[in-house]
Amino acid sequence: MSKGIISKDEDYSQWFNELVIKADMAEYSPVRGCMIIKPYGYSIWEKMQAVLDKMFKDTGHSNAYFPLLIPKSFFSKEASHVEGFAKECAVVTHYRLKNDENGQIVVDEEAKLEEELIIRPTSETIIWNTYKGWIQSYRDLPILVNQWANVMRWEMRTRMFLRTSEFLWQEGHTAHATAEEAVAETEQMLDVYADFAENWLALPVVRGRKTPNERFAGALDTYCIEALMQDGKALQAGTSHFLGQNFAKAFDVKFANKEGKLDYVWATSWGVSTRLIGALIMAHSDDAGLVLPPKLAPIQVVIVPIYKHDKELENIRAYVKGLSAELKGKGISVKFDDRDTQRPGFKFAEYELKGVPVRVAIGSRDMQNGTVELARRDTKTKETVQQEGLAAHIEALLEEIQTNIYAKAHSFREENTVEVDTYDEFKRLLDEKPGFISAHWDGTPETEQRIKEETKATIRCIPLNNPQQEGKCILTGKPSTQRVLFARAY
Amino acid sequence: MSKGIISKDEDYSQWFNELVIKADMAEYSPVRGCMIIKPYGYSIWEKMQAVLDKMFKDTGHSNAYFPLLIPKSFFSKEASHVEGFAKECAVVTHYRLKNDENGQIVVDEEAKLEEELIIRPTSETIIWNTYKGWIQSYRDLPILVNQWANVMRWEMRTRMFLRTSEFLWQEGHTAHATAEEAVAETEQMLDVYADFAENWLALPVVRGRKTPNERFAGALDTYCIEALMQDGKALQAGTSHFLGQNFAKAFDVKFANKEGKLDYVWATSWGVSTRLIGALIMAHSDDAGLVLPPKLAPIQVVIVPIYKHDKELENIRAYVKGLSAELKGKGISVKFDDRDTQRPGFKFAEYELKGVPVRVAIGSRDMQNGTVELARRDTKTKETVQQEGLAAHIEALLEEIQTNIYAKAHSFREENTVEVDTYDEFKRLLDEKPGFISAHWDGTPETEQRIKEETKATIRCIPLNNPQQEGKCILTGKPSTQRVLFARAY
Repeated sequence: MSKGIISKDEDYSQWFNELVIKADMAEYSPVRGCMIIKPYGYSIWEKMQAVLDKMFKDTGHSNAYFPLLIPKSFFSKEASHVEGFAKECAVVTHYRLKNDENGQIVVDEEAKLEEELIIRPTSETIIWNTYKGWIQSYRDLPILVNQWANVMRWEMRTRMFLRTSEFLWQEGHTAHATAEEAVAETEQMLDVYADFAENWLALPVVRGRKTPNERFAGALDTYCIEALMQDGKALQAGTSHFLGQNFAKAFDVKFANKEGKLDYVWATSWGVSTRLIGALIMAHSDDAGLVLPPKLAPIQVVIVPIYKHDKELENIRAYVKGLSAELKGKGISVKFDDRDTQRPGFKFAEYELKGVPVRVAIGSRDMQNGTVELARRDTKTKETVQQEGLAAHIEALLEEIQTNIYAKAHSFREENTVEVDTYDEFKRLLDEKPGFISAHWDGTPETEQRIKEETKATIRCIPLNNPQQEGKCILTGKPSTQRVLFARAY
Repeated sequence: MSKGIISKDEDYSQWFNELVIKADMAEYSPVRGCMIIKPYGYSIWEKMQAVLDKMFKDTGHSNAYFPLLIPKSFFSKEASHVEGFAKECAVVTHYRLKNDENGQIVVDEEAKLEEELIIRPTSETIIWNTYKGWIQSYRDLPILVNQWANVMRWEMRTRMFLRTSEFLWQEGHTAHATAEEAVAETEQMLDVYADFAENWLALPVVRGRKTPNERFAGALDTYCIEALMQDGKALQAGTSHFLGQNFAKAFDVKFANKEGKLDYVWATSWGVSTRLIGALIMAHSDDAGLVLPPKLAPIQVVIVPIYKHDKELENIRAYVKGLSAELKGKGISVKFDDRDTQRPGFKFAEYELKGVPVRVAIGSRDMQNGTVELARRDTKTKETVQQEGLAAHIEALLEEIQTNIYAKAHSFREENTVEVDTYDEFKRLLDEKPGFISAHWDGTPETEQRIKEETKATIRCIPLNNPQQEGKCILTGKPSTQRVLFARAY
């Protein structure tokens, strides 16, 4: 098969790259580290957006839009924010091109900006600068705003969907009258992300908090959801930050409380990105191609006719018309692929590559017998089933596939989450059987850093509701009160 | 009333600016010429997006995403394109910031790009560079792709929604095997835009073609829809371009036809932007605030309780609960404003400002009488109606308002479209009673240019299906075969 891809056991990284390209998800652009999201990949993003956007609105948020460009000076205002962010950014310095004497296009040096503008790597600064004008009193709070946007971070090593210089995301930015309310918002949005990951992406996640080392630049607390990919590496799938009063102080955003006393406003921010598409691919797919959870698959059911003569095709087509209508009535997306330029075997491989959850094949004998051949993508099993009641059967099958994909990923994670009590075992496991390692840590940034340098493993999170347990740090042997979750990560 | 705005008859331009700010639609940002679209304004854009996106998909298009940044050299490839576009653009020259010895953030001069990158002013170049890889044979055609994105043109004189440096839009980019098919696509998308403008924005538009002077840079033919604002100035509300083979030639995009012969691919592009929000405001609103067509209003019905005691409020609330449910069941968006911090009169003014099409006020006497007071925003008339059958009454009223807003704008345009046969009359009308002027023109770019310089009026379009009629050019007296539509424009 010309569209074959390398086995993921042979070279996981190469497998991912080939899959992204051959399944028509995305490709690299001529601009370093930026990708082109092709229609098939983008349609998955649109489905994700629709679900998340509804979840945000159901929890009281509205969308807005803030400028792409941020004055350079804004980044200096919040000290820890600039440390974490302001390094690798795209900088706009001029606003005009012109033709030179040779007719070539050059930058017009006379059109130099007084202050350079930065393409947003994230929007806390421009948004808090704006909120200053929106907030005077407690009556103006809370502000619950989200933005769907492109952002840019000039990454040195890029990988499609997982780490690109430009990416698409949503960033929620909320303002509150009290710390408690802001923390509750931070936790609520973490739950929204976890719900989305588990029930739509079919991706089991660990909810947790980052260590101070791994916190978002400017946050007092960063919550995250962490997922395990099939190569045993972890992937941070979403973050929700409690920003305290840091940005309010940096941009002087105060409000009068009910007693008329002025105080700084409390903030949160939270985001997920097109990285989730990378997570989706890496968590479920196999050597035949994508495995998409039915709830996010652009095409849920493909129907392939198998025929020799046009008359047979017409016969099949008449039946498919009714079946399609019935499926669509149930909200199921269907494609009938009656192209006469490709053979059924080619089509089967193509839809396996693209991860269509259910394939229906119908030949002349099926028409005589009142049956179809039903193939499910996740297990690659086939069965012959009756045409009678088929739509209901498919509907149930899609639910079963969704559940099964989640269960498989969950088992994989359970099998690859191990408690470890010595540093030797820790290092051995990372190389031999990578996954989540639950281990004691003495709680110091120094130890965390040394482990990272020596093993490339980082503390992915301190799980929420983590059991308290006495133990000894795997590196220093110092006392520890709880295990934390280590892994090598994307 | 503290939120009052200037009368549009007194200062139309100032009226527009105040309305945008006070109705919470948008505000200027600290970045020159860029706006912040506030939640209320953005929710109108979201409604527009949802309707248009469905129209695009119903006509076979898919969404995709291409990079924000375009290599400078790409703009040199299509000669007429660069003439029209490459001047006022935001230019990225560096990719890193650093702290200098004083702890200030500065651009890292060592991180200078080899080739400057331009923030897309439009995406023909990067997209046709990509299509080269997607198209080999006629089987790969047509490509029907749309992108929702932000773009940037460094405008010198900006105005919120109408002309901002950064704006949001959609840009369709299609590739075809024949000129006929590309022209048909161009015309189809013009019809989609006209349908949207008339049936959703309630904005009557003239479909037409641009003169060569006014064509998009790189197009063989530019179709447009033109609308008339309440100050008698025209506004281009959408364009659809037949690009011929210009971009295919510039980026060497060929395909093998059925006979195996190579030919360049035919192209179209088409777009509408957040400018449509400006059109919406300018076409319908009045001195009390926005007048929104119900089909695009974020809140279609607001319910305001009028009460002295909490017990009365509870009584009203119980009734409103049922009414709201009934309205929502009909797909109508409802807001019940039971804030106790504002008086009814304040609320009435606020929702008039925000253009909510229907207001329901309910007092204790209404509750006794089984009535409510119903006010419509477009005519500002009130009536007392029975609670019985109210939801159906409101549903019909919303349709009537939609129709009425369109009819009013249509009458306005008819009254302000005049046939003129002399240049003196032409100039007098432009100053005294601006609007569309239908006049003969000798068909030369020179005459068009002179009229533009002398009067600031431009040829908005040559209407489709324009009657052929002998006449004399208003400026030169030379023979003309048809009237064209002139106006001063935004």
